[in-house]
Amino acid sequence: MLERYGHGGDLWTAEEAFGRSRDEFLDFSSNMNPLGPPPAMKGIWMDAWRDVVKYPDPAVRELRRKLAQKYEIEMESILVGNGAAELIDLTARVLKPSVTGLARPSFSEYEEAIHKTGGRIYNIPLRSSYQFELQQQDVEAAIPAVDLFFLGHPNNPTGRLLPRHVVDSLLESGRSCVLDEAFMDFVPNEQEHSLLKLASTSRKLIVIRSMTKFYSIPGIRLGFMVAHPDLIREIRQQQVQWSVNYLAQRIGTAVLEDEEFELASRHWLQDEKAWLTGQLQQLGLNVVPTDVNFVLFSFPPALGLTVKQAQKLMGQMGILIRDASLFEGLDEQYCRVAIRLREDNERLIEGLRQTVAALAQNRGRTHG
Amino acid sequence: MLERYGHGGDLWTAEEAFGRSRDEFLDFSSNMNPLGPPPAMKGIWMDAWRDVVKYPDPAVRELRRKLAQKYEIEMESILVGNGAAELIDLTARVLKPSVTGLARPSFSEYEEAIHKTGGRIYNIPLRSSYQFELQQQDVEAAIPAVDLFFLGHPNNPTGRLLPRHVVDSLLESGRSCVLDEAFMDFVPNEQEHSLLKLASTSRKLIVIRSMTKFYSIPGIRLGFMVAHPDLIREIRQQQVQWSVNYLAQRIGTAVLEDEEFELASRHWLQDEKAWLTGQLQQLGLNVVPTDVNFVLFSFPPALGLTVKQAQKLMGQMGILIRDASLFEGLDEQYCRVAIRLREDNERLIEGLRQTVAALAQNRGRTHG
Repeated sequence: MLERYGHGGDLWTAEEAFGRSRDEFLDFSSNMNPLGPPPAMKGIWMDAWRDVVKYPDPAVRELRRKLAQKYEIEMESILVGNGAAELIDLTARVLKPSVTGLARPSFSEYEEAIHKTGGRIYNIPLRSSYQFELQQQDVEAAIPAVDLFFLGHPNNPTGRLLPRHVVDSLLESGRSCVLDEAFMDFVPNEQEHSLLKLASTSRKLIVIRSMTKFYSIPGIRLGFMVAHPDLIREIRQQQVQWSVNYLAQRIGTAVLEDEEFELASRHWLQDEKAWLTGQLQQLGLNVVPTDVNFVLFSFPPALGLTVKQAQKLMGQMGILIRDASLFEGLDEQYCRVAIRLREDNERLIEGLRQTVAALAQNRGRTHG
Repeated sequence: MLERYGHGGDLWTAEEAFGRSRDEFLDFSSNMNPLGPPPAMKGIWMDAWRDVVKYPDPAVRELRRKLAQKYEIEMESILVGNGAAELIDLTARVLKPSVTGLARPSFSEYEEAIHKTGGRIYNIPLRSSYQFELQQQDVEAAIPAVDLFFLGHPNNPTGRLLPRHVVDSLLESGRSCVLDEAFMDFVPNEQEHSLLKLASTSRKLIVIRSMTKFYSIPGIRLGFMVAHPDLIREIRQQQVQWSVNYLAQRIGTAVLEDEEFELASRHWLQDEKAWLTGQLQQLGLNVVPTDVNFVLFSFPPALGLTVKQAQKLMGQMGILIRDASLFEGLDEQYCRVAIRLREDNERLIEGLRQTVAALAQNRGRTHG
């Protein structure tokens, strides 16, 4: 199992599993923007070493100022974190919900953060019959049972936005609601969907954003959250001093200005999403429509192969895919892949084609 | 007040306070090794940008392997953190002591971490009459009242090691004991004093180390802790995923091998500690003997100046010193300064000379 530590993108485990250097893998198991990092990053990186001898700004002033400008909200509504993971953890610890509504399947960090606080989970099903779109009646059934919703918007691993009327139900429910918008930058017309601005003054709504996916900088860790200033203050008191390293602060501040990168990324994704999903369908796979830069699909039972078998074969070819059966609510047919550049996507498709063929042949031998 | 966020080294606040670019300050308020970062760092830094698109190793395998080799302990006894600050916080959260014995004065993060867990503090005095060396009778008085000791070894801001017989009392007390060895690398004959190896198998002793002070890399955050493997596992479960960024892992792994840097640092400190403390004494200041790379001193009441006045005047000269009166247990005469290279130390001494003269003159005018 490549997800030994619960996530994709673990090249160290892949190296141990397949005896191949971690630089040689084509990684579809973590969902980074293949156009990133933005060009501005390299210059800052090369310059920033001189300042490693200084503590990072404990209040992350420059980056918060820039975020406030970009999203037209107050600095006091923004807290920057050591990756979105830290902010998920802090939010759960400060809100300490008794019962949290989580959609299934969704990102495992929500559940882990809730469990650490001793809270209980209420499962909200995402139904394959509705292509994993969260249904209003399932939210309404959850409202009396939960005191907090913790949802991906869009959700990982399904790639689906919350429908607008479902968002409205959540906001009207009177329950607190944490929305993880880690992949929101990849959504066409992001501004129409993001609830970030609303969160900056709301007493019930919290939005968490990652900066590592869209800008492809997971190695240095960077995320931020937006909420009412009173809650931000309370959460900041629980945050570890100097949690956000200096390099992350500098790079985060610079990349926000790169509108060209933003535009290029949107164009790439628009084209490539259509191409890749089409190719996956042509292989006979069941593809879930996606709003973002990754795709959930399943191997039809008729093919007779599981994602674990596929992951092993693909890994031997140097291609890493995500075993999505590890997400509660998905069976052993489910797989998630990032959308990358055309050439890489072609290698993915070719690898999957060979995998399907090899396993089907093998099955022919075993059962024939 | 320059310590708006509770610590020294806050160049952003200094910039706001003195209207001077943060690069122009000579910073004696944070305790970095002026010989650092080690030469190996720059090459790694320049190379590492390529890998920012990958997640850090969630298990920090290479750095833990290297630390295990260096200190001759098992990897399973080591947890790496996003700075020692994260490990102090995690340790307090997992141990959840009811009453914690803290020496006064000491590093404020211990108290903050304990307060976050709702625990109470038992104050153990460090007495100026004993040059702030922790006294055995004060430890023995604390033993019945506390379930955990959280102590600096050496202690910050006093710069004093725990005496060996006091360490023995602590170990025999049956109480859990967390020792913060953030500055242990600066102690001559470190191996004779560090309790790191003992901690790796003990059920009562935990040692926390910083790598940012000796190697001068606070900008990227790096620390580690050593304890019994069972406790390490438990604490790791509370740690946020990918907490230690990729660059910190790479640099940490490399600098541990640089024995030349280690030796040069010891030689520099041996010479410079003697010179600087001598000069401070010649200015008529009361200097506390130090085991490390910073010095606590006080302005004798006869001089009629407080550290806040001195900090302001020195700040206007572009020199930052630490207001040590902010440490509980020290009055407004106390100041802490890092030991730097000779040329910088000369500027510090000259600045202090002018400050003492200016304030004494001023006093002469006021009261004359």
